[in-house]
Amino acid sequence: MEKLNKQLDFIIELDKLKGIYRQALVKSDKNRFENSAEHSWHISLTAQILHEYAVEEVNISRVMSMLLIHDIVEIDAGDMFAFSDESSHVEQEEKEASAASRIFGLLPEKQFLSFKELWFEFEKAETIDARFAKAIDRILPLLQNMRNEGGSWVRHNVKKSQVIKRNEYLDKLAPQLWLYVCEQIDHAVERGWLRDS
Amino acid sequence: MEKLNKQLDFIIELDKLKGIYRQALVKSDKNRFENSAEHSWHISLTAQILHEYAVEEVNISRVMSMLLIHDIVEIDAGDMFAFSDESSHVEQEEKEASAASRIFGLLPEKQFLSFKELWFEFEKAETIDARFAKAIDRILPLLQNMRNEGGSWVRHNVKKSQVIKRNEYLDKLAPQLWLYVCEQIDHAVERGWLRDS
Repeated sequence: MEKLNKQLDFIIELDKLKGIYRQALVKSDKNRFENSAEHSWHISLTAQILHEYAVEEVNISRVMSMLLIHDIVEIDAGDMFAFSDESSHVEQEEKEASAASRIFGLLPEKQFLSFKELWFEFEKAETIDARFAKAIDRILPLLQNMRNEGGSWVRHNVKKSQVIKRNEYLDKLAPQLWLYVCEQIDHAVERGWLRDS
Repeated sequence: MEKLNKQLDFIIELDKLKGIYRQALVKSDKNRFENSAEHSWHISLTAQILHEYAVEEVNISRVMSMLLIHDIVEIDAGDMFAFSDESSHVEQEEKEASAASRIFGLLPEKQFLSFKELWFEFEKAETIDARFAKAIDRILPLLQNMRNEGGSWVRHNVKKSQVIKRNEYLDKLAPQLWLYVCEQIDHAVERGWLRDS
């Protein structure tokens, strides 16, 4: 029973991700802030639906598992807005690495190692699976902001160049999605939702 | 672009599941009600962590996909409490079947059929994958109620026999989990969180 108890402790710990709020808004629920648990669900399905656009074949099961676990570290480290300044990113990375050790460390050894490795693979974004997962994680906020009069871009005064930089490796990974993203960014600038500078 | 637009419409439609609330409470977030999107994320990971306890081998990628999509029909049909009366279950099933046609129908034909089939497979609970998925969907509320002074059981005056009936096909599917569930039910009765009748 010791092994099962460790697994159940981890499963209960996951509940805390439902209380970590992001900058995106949930339009269909009174425009409240989105939490990282429901976001993880949404992007896993988004990856499943859009993986045909990847130029190289991705292992979609691995991508979905990555996306389901990629934000768990925020239970300890909190969510950081994508467009906050560079210095806070370094500090955030350190917090997230400690969080990965503590939270995945609740699991039995074998699962601990496999979850931690998968999480590191996502963070490093060197493999095709990880790069595709990261691209999907970045495309969804754009879709949400476009349906929400600019959403978090407007509130945080975000520039077009920042959104391009954040999404541009879609270019080689999934050119059709990149084309769509570029069109949307242009619309956002026209509507005054992104600063054109 | 027509195909991509259909897929993006579906992805945006999914946002609505974040506004469908269940009877379970999120203890770590001021005991607010849990929504079906974050619940779907939680049980997909729960399935991944616990699938080694299934006596017959399950295809865990299929199980996780099933769990990610199983509640999407609630966008139209709403969530129904597990222990509500039998007559409302029949009506709910009809609403959910219509919802599956409308919502999955937003997708291009091939994805529409594959999502709808996967959802029906879950609902019918005849295959090993679907039965395991359903068992996991039912075990998590028990874990949550046990960590929350009886949670929805107490508020709805639920009986021990109802919880046993709802979980008992774990018996053959994953005996070690069934043993754990039985112990928890006994503890819940001792503490007055379930009616013993």
